[in-house]
Amino acid sequence: MNFLEEKIVKDGIVKEGNVLKVDSFLNHQMDIDLFNKMGEEWKKRFEGKDINKILTIEASGIGIACIAAQHFGVPVVFAKKAKSINLEGEMYTAEVESFIHKNKNQVIVAKKFLTEDDHVLIIDDFLANGCALQGLIQIVQAAGATVEGIGIAVEKGFQQGGTMIRNLGYQLESLAIVDDMDHTTGEIKFR
Amino acid sequence: MNFLEEKIVKDGIVKEGNVLKVDSFLNHQMDIDLFNKMGEEWKKRFEGKDINKILTIEASGIGIACIAAQHFGVPVVFAKKAKSINLEGEMYTAEVESFIHKNKNQVIVAKKFLTEDDHVLIIDDFLANGCALQGLIQIVQAAGATVEGIGIAVEKGFQQGGTMIRNLGYQLESLAIVDDMDHTTGEIKFR
Repeated sequence: MNFLEEKIVKDGIVKEGNVLKVDSFLNHQMDIDLFNKMGEEWKKRFEGKDINKILTIEASGIGIACIAAQHFGVPVVFAKKAKSINLEGEMYTAEVESFIHKNKNQVIVAKKFLTEDDHVLIIDDFLANGCALQGLIQIVQAAGATVEGIGIAVEKGFQQGGTMIRNLGYQLESLAIVDDMDHTTGEIKFR
Repeated sequence: MNFLEEKIVKDGIVKEGNVLKVDSFLNHQMDIDLFNKMGEEWKKRFEGKDINKILTIEASGIGIACIAAQHFGVPVVFAKKAKSINLEGEMYTAEVESFIHKNKNQVIVAKKFLTEDDHVLIIDDFLANGCALQGLIQIVQAAGATVEGIGIAVEKGFQQGGTMIRNLGYQLESLAIVDDMDHTTGEIKFR
């Protein structure tokens, strides 16, 4: 087991309905030392890639992306989930559906922050059915920019998102892939 | 002018209706080197304070809080703006109104992440009328925890939030206080 899998076994909680709660260190309370280890690991896995920007999506992706960005020396752009009066001007938009919240969101990135010169690493906390990720990829492509890779903290391997993204040819580096969970025993099987 | 004021003058844009756009470095695209300077500055200004946790609110506060947390060696908790099926259990809640979005949000922090033993530094990107901040303070108090200080990137000094928070006796450290803006000339006056 790697450091993130060990942390998930130690502090993650398996709930009914294939819910994995990691809110004590990943997406409500945030363990910054852990995020730094994740950034270091992605830096190794994307060695040699020419990355000049990290793209993530609000809210849980932002902290991980900002800490990881220090290992790449690049700025972060986060996609917003609703139109704000402060976000005027031309924008790239994609519609994404959340597995957790069961709703659809318009995802927005201002055009001035993504151009055809950008080589983008996409970072997010979770990958399940992959809808959020598809929205982000769609936005990078609309900008004429290049997706150099995708870094995910926790992938639910029993849902189709990861397989689909890999089948499309993207370098997807999930630091923990959960292939099975049992809420009656709390057991978690990693790939 | 300090480093943040200089950055605002260089890359901020003054818009009609007292809107200051800082989305190229603060709250859409994020300049991580700048966030580190902000963290360093808050560490100095809160020298001697016994801080063991940083509290912020999604979404724009998260990146700043995570980078700043490295200078304090503490975890970050971010208040969520909507009830999630992943955030069950007992929660502290407060209702806050957004000046920008003109709507009300329920702000939520899980009780297990704030206790009476916590000495909290609250971090956020903007302070205008102070409603978000009041909600966060309310939550810290409900937990029996202590607000050791409040770190804000940009305060709109011509709105009442900062005055009210200081009148309540909190150590509020805003790195840039805008006392006046003119969208016709683009001029910004700092305190």
